[in-house]
Amino acid sequence: MNEPFTTEREIESTAAALVEQLERLPEEEARAIFSQLTAPQRAAVVGELETTVSIELLKALPDDQVAACLQIVPRNIAADLVANLPEERRSPILSGLAPEKAAAVSALLRYSPESAGGIMDNRFVAVRVDETVDQSLARVRAAPIKSTDDISYIYVTDAGQKLVGVVSLRELVFSPAERPLKEIFNPEVQFLRVSDDQEQIAQRIQQSKFLGFPVVDEQQRLVGVVRMRDAIRVAQIEATEDMQLMVGMSGEERIWTRWNVSIAKRLPWLGVNMLTTLLAAAVVSYFEDTIARWAALVAFLPMISAVGGNAGMQALTVIVRGLALGEVVDGDALRAVRKELAIGLANGFVLGLAIGLLAFGWKGSVLLGVVAAAAMLLNQVVGALSGVAIPFGLRRCGIDPALASSIFVTTITDVIGFLVFLGLAALAMRVYGL
Amino acid sequence: MNEPFTTEREIESTAAALVEQLERLPEEEARAIFSQLTAPQRAAVVGELETTVSIELLKALPDDQVAACLQIVPRNIAADLVANLPEERRSPILSGLAPEKAAAVSALLRYSPESAGGIMDNRFVAVRVDETVDQSLARVRAAPIKSTDDISYIYVTDAGQKLVGVVSLRELVFSPAERPLKEIFNPEVQFLRVSDDQEQIAQRIQQSKFLGFPVVDEQQRLVGVVRMRDAIRVAQIEATEDMQLMVGMSGEERIWTRWNVSIAKRLPWLGVNMLTTLLAAAVVSYFEDTIARWAALVAFLPMISAVGGNAGMQALTVIVRGLALGEVVDGDALRAVRKELAIGLANGFVLGLAIGLLAFGWKGSVLLGVVAAAAMLLNQVVGALSGVAIPFGLRRCGIDPALASSIFVTTITDVIGFLVFLGLAALAMRVYGL
Repeated sequence: MNEPFTTEREIESTAAALVEQLERLPEEEARAIFSQLTAPQRAAVVGELETTVSIELLKALPDDQVAACLQIVPRNIAADLVANLPEERRSPILSGLAPEKAAAVSALLRYSPESAGGIMDNRFVAVRVDETVDQSLARVRAAPIKSTDDISYIYVTDAGQKLVGVVSLRELVFSPAERPLKEIFNPEVQFLRVSDDQEQIAQRIQQSKFLGFPVVDEQQRLVGVVRMRDAIRVAQIEATEDMQLMVGMSGEERIWTRWNVSIAKRLPWLGVNMLTTLLAAAVVSYFEDTIARWAALVAFLPMISAVGGNAGMQALTVIVRGLALGEVVDGDALRAVRKELAIGLANGFVLGLAIGLLAFGWKGSVLLGVVAAAAMLLNQVVGALSGVAIPFGLRRCGIDPALASSIFVTTITDVIGFLVFLGLAALAMRVYGL
Repeated sequence: MNEPFTTEREIESTAAALVEQLERLPEEEARAIFSQLTAPQRAAVVGELETTVSIELLKALPDDQVAACLQIVPRNIAADLVANLPEERRSPILSGLAPEKAAAVSALLRYSPESAGGIMDNRFVAVRVDETVDQSLARVRAAPIKSTDDISYIYVTDAGQKLVGVVSLRELVFSPAERPLKEIFNPEVQFLRVSDDQEQIAQRIQQSKFLGFPVVDEQQRLVGVVRMRDAIRVAQIEATEDMQLMVGMSGEERIWTRWNVSIAKRLPWLGVNMLTTLLAAAVVSYFEDTIARWAALVAFLPMISAVGGNAGMQALTVIVRGLALGEVVDGDALRAVRKELAIGLANGFVLGLAIGLLAFGWKGSVLLGVVAAAAMLLNQVVGALSGVAIPFGLRRCGIDPALASSIFVTTITDVIGFLVFLGLAALAMRVYGL
């Protein structure tokens, strides 16, 4: 509670410039600069840097300097950093903190950094439901709050520390001093549980009418507050993660992530993609004779593959994002399938007609036109349906619905598209004796 | 100012259920239900529904009922809805509003719905820099504020209504009554201009330490406030939009968007994609003879296309999201190119080796292995670089960097990948007289 926040404003103005430098410089230079900083300066920047970058910088410092820095950092951020440091350094660093801070950080360390318990700030103001307005205001006045903390809403607990409601600071301030809090507080309060995943925070942030969420433990006791700023950060991180997961990335990559780290995250998924495309390769290979005898076919493979894959990505994007925002729930799968079926059929008719005419006009073969049109039509439907099936399926298996989903969807459209196109072509050749 | 907010709480609890129903039901049924609602019920749901859905429902009502509903809706949302109604219905509806509300909505209508001016609420509390704490508090107390409005921070203006700073409600409440506001307000305040695009709101929301942004006009006068809730909604919309734009969608599609509307938005981009893949088709077609004489080649086309395209998408995702969040600026292009070049080369070596060995093992040809490996290597580099070049290039042309970017990137990887692979194969066949 005795953390020096007085020089806060001056530190923050230089922190932004430092953060930018540290992110953009090569690792060694960033470390050299960081080692020159004072503890308050370090504290100001580690709060703003990506966690992975902060950890890299902190790791290079001795335990006592890390402790001096963490002593000044808000406890939820300190806990997040300690959780990411190597196991063997945690207790020496914790014991370098003031006993009170060490206890608070240790308490937060019990929760996963991606849960409400890990994200919440366990320093907050709460008032008691059996107090008067005056008593509540005195409590708020006495609370050690940073000037940037949001206290528009103050949570109300009972004698057993259980969360029972919320009251706005404005209502407190403008109500008669002797009025019982009971009469003015709002018992309808949205809360998170310590074990809730950060995904749920991102989903509920839009629906919340209050700025921030109270967090309760298993006994419904108020143990912390997820502040709006942290909730927004989490929501932005979740959106970034979904976009990256879809194309086979970790969700944590930024432009300043070092290239060797990026490779370690991207290459395995490219490898998976190569393996899945083996299926498409096998299909094409199976029809090698057909292609050798009718080489014009091959010009249409990229088109069927790309346009089918793109249709799949369109459906996929709607579903993945809808699931992430909580706008789409499991029960919506059937509805989504029906909608995508209609879209796939309609788009397939138009695009099938287009590719059919193109094939006929370019290669002068009605048969090729018909085969290409049929494959395009079917592949539009397959793309749209797999764009729904993959994310709902992944979710059903307890996996993030975005995970590598574009790789799976495009593999399906490649395989089915080629199978239909080359299969029909082979059949036609046999029937017409070409 | 005399808008009935008293029954707010009861209305909101049923509104959530209604919103869900209206979104999920077929259009005609939704309209039938909506026509049965009272004006306050309608007001509660149009604030929560997607704008396109709200407009559909409102359009079916007569002017006076639309006005009765909009009378109760917050003015920034009312303005947004009026702006989306057919031109000829706007003035009859506006004249059905109370004069004060009509004036406020008309004022907001001057701004684009996607600008800070269109998003802001022009009802806010401001205090004057030449007042005492007591005078300021009296002003806050007298202001007509909804209980859910955020007033943790109160903006401070000078006599000419120019924005000069911000003060927290907490500081006001706990400072001596006679203290001049001058001594406690914070002159460092982040603000938006009425003309700022919503993209900038999404970018700055993370950096802001206050909850919401004041909005100033050309003369630096405070004219409105973008509330945190609206800022978060905008940020979520921007993230959704980026994901959708990348794959050739409008950015406005949700799972409950009617399928005919979806088709109108998706099909044109699939058409564009089909046209761009004509380039890849032309490349493949050019090498028809090569393929006819060496049909084994064709099995590797999907692999080179898919894995190269995926690598491009990975780089693209990092850049598009980074640009959207303001983490990446124009000056970072060179840095990104260098990083992606390193990644492309490294991944290309590994994946090239893999596909080379695979080609040799499967088809028994060293030559095929070497050609496939070279094409894979080069295409990894091309994918990574075009993932950087396309978004930066689009942005340079004043176009959203996400727009259809995945279509462009995968077209490039298809064309270059096939060109290198088939070109090298043709060359090798000539050299070795196959």
